[in-house]
Amino acid sequence: MITIALDAMGGDHAPRAEVEGAVLAARQYGVRVVLVGIESKIRAELNRHSHRGLSIEVVNATEVITMEDSPSHAFRKKRDSSVHVGAKMVRDGKADALVSAGNTGAVMAIARFVLGQLPSVDRPALAAAFPTAKGNPAVLLDVGANVDSKPEQLEQFAIMGEIYYRTIFGTRRPRVAILSIGEEEMKGNELTREASNRLKQTGLNFTGNVEGKDFFKGNVDVIVCDGFIGNIVLKISEGLVEHVGGMLKKALKSSVSAKVGYVLSRHAFDEFRKKIDYSEYGGVPLLGVRGITVIGHGRSNSNAIKNAIRVAGELCRAKVNEKIEQELSAVGAGVRV
Amino acid sequence: MITIALDAMGGDHAPRAEVEGAVLAARQYGVRVVLVGIESKIRAELNRHSHRGLSIEVVNATEVITMEDSPSHAFRKKRDSSVHVGAKMVRDGKADALVSAGNTGAVMAIARFVLGQLPSVDRPALAAAFPTAKGNPAVLLDVGANVDSKPEQLEQFAIMGEIYYRTIFGTRRPRVAILSIGEEEMKGNELTREASNRLKQTGLNFTGNVEGKDFFKGNVDVIVCDGFIGNIVLKISEGLVEHVGGMLKKALKSSVSAKVGYVLSRHAFDEFRKKIDYSEYGGVPLLGVRGITVIGHGRSNSNAIKNAIRVAGELCRAKVNEKIEQELSAVGAGVRV
Repeated sequence: MITIALDAMGGDHAPRAEVEGAVLAARQYGVRVVLVGIESKIRAELNRHSHRGLSIEVVNATEVITMEDSPSHAFRKKRDSSVHVGAKMVRDGKADALVSAGNTGAVMAIARFVLGQLPSVDRPALAAAFPTAKGNPAVLLDVGANVDSKPEQLEQFAIMGEIYYRTIFGTRRPRVAILSIGEEEMKGNELTREASNRLKQTGLNFTGNVEGKDFFKGNVDVIVCDGFIGNIVLKISEGLVEHVGGMLKKALKSSVSAKVGYVLSRHAFDEFRKKIDYSEYGGVPLLGVRGITVIGHGRSNSNAIKNAIRVAGELCRAKVNEKIEQELSAVGAGVRV
Repeated sequence: MITIALDAMGGDHAPRAEVEGAVLAARQYGVRVVLVGIESKIRAELNRHSHRGLSIEVVNATEVITMEDSPSHAFRKKRDSSVHVGAKMVRDGKADALVSAGNTGAVMAIARFVLGQLPSVDRPALAAAFPTAKGNPAVLLDVGANVDSKPEQLEQFAIMGEIYYRTIFGTRRPRVAILSIGEEEMKGNELTREASNRLKQTGLNFTGNVEGKDFFKGNVDVIVCDGFIGNIVLKISEGLVEHVGGMLKKALKSSVSAKVGYVLSRHAFDEFRKKIDYSEYGGVPLLGVRGITVIGHGRSNSNAIKNAIRVAGELCRAKVNEKIEQELSAVGAGVRV
């Protein structure tokens, strides 16, 4: 049975959302979930659910990482944090994957230090799925594990992202593209031009550059970029959706008929909001570390936690890390810089 | 009287939107507008409007740059294009500013070659205004005149953007920030860290880093970044607004009550859409060239053209280029690389 170490103290709604998500996932996906964190708090939440027959365990961890902790502080000063204890379980073979909706920087740092990287991986990458107009998600990586990425790293991101996409979204030959400022090959910067040359020589289904304006159209599946840029794209998108939602609400409160209209179309709005909420995709895997690690949004509700556990389980079952190691080592040594 | 050379053949709705926008601007702002392009077509449109007493002229240019023309092709092979003829009018002192809603790359290339740069400017930059939650726009630059910008160029962008913001939006001390992946100074890449060190030593109202998630909140006025990143931010935002709008429409067609709701709230929707449409801000100036140049969106309607002419006129009146040259030369030589 696949065992998931779940940071029960991570998200904004922890441990309530975490415990509920764990119960849902254990029931629906038949995985074992180990809730890691302050045992008394976790048990109090667990008592609110019927979980007989489900494989749910609790492992105590006395410290909690907050959103304000710097990655290095969280790693160095809180050795008994739920993230740290969970990561060690994965390292020691007591769990197959780590899932956390906590402080992204801290989870990344701890996963990198405690688990280490796969031998052929130069830099791990965070892969985020975005909803598109055609329904298929677009996976962007790296969205913030690195800055100042090099062409050979973008090549690795593409290979890792493609394996992830195939595994989770079931596409046989995902289309791979580079995020750039024009479709033509020469349009871009030094990094994208060199990465483009490299990607053409891989066996990937590489389709060239994709522009920002086409990002959400759904014509490509895996999009690679420097981690600085990817993080900005992710955060700008979140910020813009929030901003547009806020402005829309304000506009719809401006007159009686608009208010009535809003009430009537409420259900459609909620469905719509769900679609643009990428927490539905079940968190963001940190690809390239030795041990599956999935990071959920801080705002994760129990459904998002459940989905993150599902994704972690699928990545384990599909032996994604073995595949990454195999394909990257086939691309050849001399990648590391 | 300020004279604007308007590329009448540029946008998707040219020359109709251009001619109508010129008439509106000449009437409202008391500027002289020279419509540059295929004279017969311009005159045919002009005859549809009453323009007695308005200062509107037509200058013939036989060639038209399309959206498909590469910048170098447009510049080299279409020497009698409306953009080229308009730029030469500015160079020769026959007009004070060039306005075009045409092919952005071509307009930039021609403006740079024909007009040249201000002596102290290392690289011109495109400055785009975004609507924010607080009402004040956020101006981002560079959004695509350059790639692989250097720290000293980001410093110049900040100085030019600040002058532009003061002039057009009337803020006495605009807040200047660097787009990055965290608020703390060390969060970012090599470029942002070095640019941050430089900006602290200027007299600007520099507030540090701004993250993607806070981009639309309206807490900063001028945001600088590398042109590759800025272009991606601009295009991702456009693409996302379109995508969200499309999904919302679909959701609102999903049931009778939602449809009725949509009809009732239609006016509120339209107002909202106007607010997120940054063409309202009147185009994107190319700061740093010798002669005011404002580039409108290809989709510009007559109102957007009118606004672009207004902005160009205000930049002329405020002697923005003199101010840029003065402030940049005060920052010191040795900037050019």
